[in-house]
Amino acid sequence: MFRTHTCGELNLEHQNLEVTLAGWVQTIRKFGAITFVDLRDRYGITQLLFGESLQAQLDQQPLGREFVLQAKGTVQERSNKNLHIPTGAIEIIVSSFEILNSSVVPPFTIQDDTDGGDDLRMKYRYLDLRRNAVKKNIELRYAVNRSARTYLHEQGFMDIETPFLIKSTPEGARDFVVPSRMNPGEFYALPQSPQTFKQLLMVSGYDRYYQIVKCFRDEDLRADRQPEFTQIDCEMSFVEQEDILNMFEGLVKRVFADVKGINYAETVQRMSWEDAMWTYGNDKPDIRFGMTITNLKYPQHTFPNRANLATLIQEAGFKVFDDAESVLAIAVPNAAEYSRKQTDELTDWVKRPQIGMQGMAFIKCLPEGFKSSIDKFYSAEKLAAIAEACDAKTGDLILILAGKEERTRKAISELRLEMGKRLGLRKENEFKLLWVLDFPLFEYDSDENRWVARHHPFTSPKPSDIPTMIDNSPKIENADKYLEHPYAQIKANAYDLVLNGNEIGGGSIRIYQRALQEKMFEALGMDQEEQAHKFGFLLGAFEYGAPPHGGIAFGFDRLCAILGGSESIRDFIAFPKNNSGRDVMLDAPASIDEKQFKELHIQLKKES
Amino acid sequence: MFRTHTCGELNLEHQNLEVTLAGWVQTIRKFGAITFVDLRDRYGITQLLFGESLQAQLDQQPLGREFVLQAKGTVQERSNKNLHIPTGAIEIIVSSFEILNSSVVPPFTIQDDTDGGDDLRMKYRYLDLRRNAVKKNIELRYAVNRSARTYLHEQGFMDIETPFLIKSTPEGARDFVVPSRMNPGEFYALPQSPQTFKQLLMVSGYDRYYQIVKCFRDEDLRADRQPEFTQIDCEMSFVEQEDILNMFEGLVKRVFADVKGINYAETVQRMSWEDAMWTYGNDKPDIRFGMTITNLKYPQHTFPNRANLATLIQEAGFKVFDDAESVLAIAVPNAAEYSRKQTDELTDWVKRPQIGMQGMAFIKCLPEGFKSSIDKFYSAEKLAAIAEACDAKTGDLILILAGKEERTRKAISELRLEMGKRLGLRKENEFKLLWVLDFPLFEYDSDENRWVARHHPFTSPKPSDIPTMIDNSPKIENADKYLEHPYAQIKANAYDLVLNGNEIGGGSIRIYQRALQEKMFEALGMDQEEQAHKFGFLLGAFEYGAPPHGGIAFGFDRLCAILGGSESIRDFIAFPKNNSGRDVMLDAPASIDEKQFKELHIQLKKES
Repeated sequence: MFRTHTCGELNLEHQNLEVTLAGWVQTIRKFGAITFVDLRDRYGITQLLFGESLQAQLDQQPLGREFVLQAKGTVQERSNKNLHIPTGAIEIIVSSFEILNSSVVPPFTIQDDTDGGDDLRMKYRYLDLRRNAVKKNIELRYAVNRSARTYLHEQGFMDIETPFLIKSTPEGARDFVVPSRMNPGEFYALPQSPQTFKQLLMVSGYDRYYQIVKCFRDEDLRADRQPEFTQIDCEMSFVEQEDILNMFEGLVKRVFADVKGINYAETVQRMSWEDAMWTYGNDKPDIRFGMTITNLKYPQHTFPNRANLATLIQEAGFKVFDDAESVLAIAVPNAAEYSRKQTDELTDWVKRPQIGMQGMAFIKCLPEGFKSSIDKFYSAEKLAAIAEACDAKTGDLILILAGKEERTRKAISELRLEMGKRLGLRKENEFKLLWVLDFPLFEYDSDENRWVARHHPFTSPKPSDIPTMIDNSPKIENADKYLEHPYAQIKANAYDLVLNGNEIGGGSIRIYQRALQEKMFEALGMDQEEQAHKFGFLLGAFEYGAPPHGGIAFGFDRLCAILGGSESIRDFIAFPKNNSGRDVMLDAPASIDEKQFKELHIQLKKES
Repeated sequence: MFRTHTCGELNLEHQNLEVTLAGWVQTIRKFGAITFVDLRDRYGITQLLFGESLQAQLDQQPLGREFVLQAKGTVQERSNKNLHIPTGAIEIIVSSFEILNSSVVPPFTIQDDTDGGDDLRMKYRYLDLRRNAVKKNIELRYAVNRSARTYLHEQGFMDIETPFLIKSTPEGARDFVVPSRMNPGEFYALPQSPQTFKQLLMVSGYDRYYQIVKCFRDEDLRADRQPEFTQIDCEMSFVEQEDILNMFEGLVKRVFADVKGINYAETVQRMSWEDAMWTYGNDKPDIRFGMTITNLKYPQHTFPNRANLATLIQEAGFKVFDDAESVLAIAVPNAAEYSRKQTDELTDWVKRPQIGMQGMAFIKCLPEGFKSSIDKFYSAEKLAAIAEACDAKTGDLILILAGKEERTRKAISELRLEMGKRLGLRKENEFKLLWVLDFPLFEYDSDENRWVARHHPFTSPKPSDIPTMIDNSPKIENADKYLEHPYAQIKANAYDLVLNGNEIGGGSIRIYQRALQEKMFEALGMDQEEQAHKFGFLLGAFEYGAPPHGGIAFGFDRLCAILGGSESIRDFIAFPKNNSGRDVMLDAPASIDEKQFKELHIQLKKES
């Protein structure tokens, strides 16, 4: 061992102890014949003092930043203590040292506030990983990993490895494929998730399975996606939805306790998908704050069971509202005093292409009465009625968006989050969990005029909806009226776990009967032959006594990022890829040898 | 929850308790108006008793093997107890039941001694996994996983995930590659091991890393290899070989204790590679028994420092021995009474193509004197001298093989293991660890007349051999005399951990200086350009303060197999592939769509 202690553990209790440390030179300060060096390792920083007797050696072997140093010496109390670090009360009086390795000058400073840009830090990721800010993320990731494993082990779950070289069954996302040398012309696929394998394990009787496992999706990468990502993947047999919800909110609560020291004692809220869409405009609401949406007018066909407030705004001669499919409002607390400049800026904000609105109306609920951008069309009484509908109080600012249903809903949802952020309502250290339930089983795909699975093809309908699914043909005769098709009303036995406005996990109770699974595949436009080719093994397995089962998968990267208070999963992955799917440190992907092409029986396609 | 208890936990303490169980029908026995069903789940088997009142329902809904059943009832003491199982003292008097799913008749019986052949069981792996024999293996695998993680966590190791989509750097084994859609004409490779990444993590300061991780090698599959396999991969900084040996024999001892209940208190033996080759004929000796090899004659150039016994057998006029490069013997204890038939059978055994010997000589050390197949050439005195050299006692049978060095050494090594097995000396429940040390750093590749790395290109030479490596050119001027090249004498800072004759782990202290790493690459025939293309990132990293480091990787599949008393790793993998690299359950690999080819910019090579 090159050291007796780490750079993070020595303190006054160790006074006069002879120690050997090894680590990296963080800083060097010379004061006459004395040199101070801060030595850094994974565990902390310890100050070394090189006295006069070592100056000759230091002159001959000058130290530099990031040099790897081994130093022997004695622990001594420091006169000038640094109370911010655990080792700040002591220093090591160095008696001898050895430079274990030297370093050229790093391309950026190894500090929390580095001067290195994103690209440079990715290229030298091994140096970026030395920075305390990144190290903390990697340590947090391991803490989450460890905590989740411990909980799942205690609950009787077994980590069972599923294969990485499987069969390509593109359905939704694109597969990465792997040419087989031994089976010319054939390809493996990398798993998008271990979904079918974990279901087979349930058929095999391993009634509590988990894995923290890499998954792969060959999708165009948005800012915060990676072609390879990690899931905490779980499955249980002989359970109903309620069992799953309890088990896995328990998991997240344990992680909160172990990793963040948070005792999340409160009951995890639950909300139907429709309520979430109605009240928050999206299916992963941030419930750390209210500012819920009021549907002043909305498309009756999407929400047939809601009381329509449209009369409040109709027949006032305001064409924008009259023509709009949806008119949606939020009441921003204590913002009635916003200046013209501020409301203009908000209007510009909703007009940005990412939001895509044409404009924004507002009503200021001032002590002296209402002041609004739509005074021309609405009397004070009408404004008061709108304000009442929005549950706005004196001092609030009502913001109103109008337009096509989906876009407007998304926009008001974004606006709500933005206002929450501006008002400091999305507190970094507050964590609010929410189960979103009762999703529609199907979504309508207008390109192909057919149903697609909202979750995935293995999700079961609510038991009460099974007859609707079995007894009706999935065929959509009239594309315009797809919402009237019985399948549009089928609810899924599915659930998402939302944390602070992010989906961190999602799952479902699965189909476990062959006939129902075949009906599902049929609904998704898969004929018998395709079913047999892609999922014959699963349909087969369902014939041999498949138990009722269900599960969930957590986005491990995202969970870590949220717990670490970051928006970017990349900061929580040791060696991430960039937005073109490249590892710029390795310079991968790259060309391969002619010999490899030959062995794999493939060649590059000539562009024609 | 579909159950209140599992099928493995109820006993007399639960008498009169109302319970609900769910599981699979293992057996059905009818006695008049009473039906007994053994219900099985992951945890055990519980007997259900269906009384007369349920017979009508049973007639209407007949049960069958592997049906999934939910049964409510009361725990009752059994008159006819089965003391072999924990639940054998009770049965459930069923009050109501529901068939959760039916099953067609399985293609083989779900029992320890199944009637299913290998192929059938692989195709229906989900049924094979139900068998107790397979389930025990999967459970053992998880226990090893859990034990290793716990130990490594306690020792300060962090599980850090390394990427799966990396760069192809074929060196030794073939890479699996993955065409990149976003980077046309370029390919990722799947990692053969996280070797370079774990070294980068050391450069980054994460001084104790581990991962239980899938690795991939596209090699022709021998009986017991898989294209994807799992490693326990570990690396440490600021350590020397001694630190690694202590840390990781500790890991295996912990696994022994946790998984097998074995307190492995004794010191783990150590042996140099040369001693292993000399004494056991191979580099992973099974030291559960002696029967060591005596080198009656051996090639002086391979073992220059050994006392040659050749005079014992030379000049006796026996051409086979006189012409042989090596003459090697073992003394089989208490086998002198072997009949002619038995020695003939052994001779046939060594003449099998897998062993490849021309014949076998033997000397029986009988109380009345020596009796041998080479009496014609050797006097009693000479036979006595040979027997003494072999440390043979009265009652022993000396077996002698002669021929070309490498083949003969392998053959005697195999013969030793075979005799150990026949004599019951390789006890399944005895576990003997051994470190093999001081490997040669290089092996000679006669095809290319150059050196190849015996371990891998990142293994460091013994510190005392570094000058030899730096100061000499790796070029081999005279292929016939490659053993005289200074590089042939360089020893590696490497170690293998051997368990009962199987290599379960191997590793090394790594090179951490750029210049030495470049020299290593050069020795392996890599020019500067190739070095930069393949390993530029690593050479770069070594310039920024790389610490001394080393590590080890355990073959997780094999470790589990040995602990489970099996020779086959396949039995310890949930979803293994066959010898053609196929998953016969999925029918993978398979063809892919034209659309996929197009998106990936590749096509199949037309056979010309």
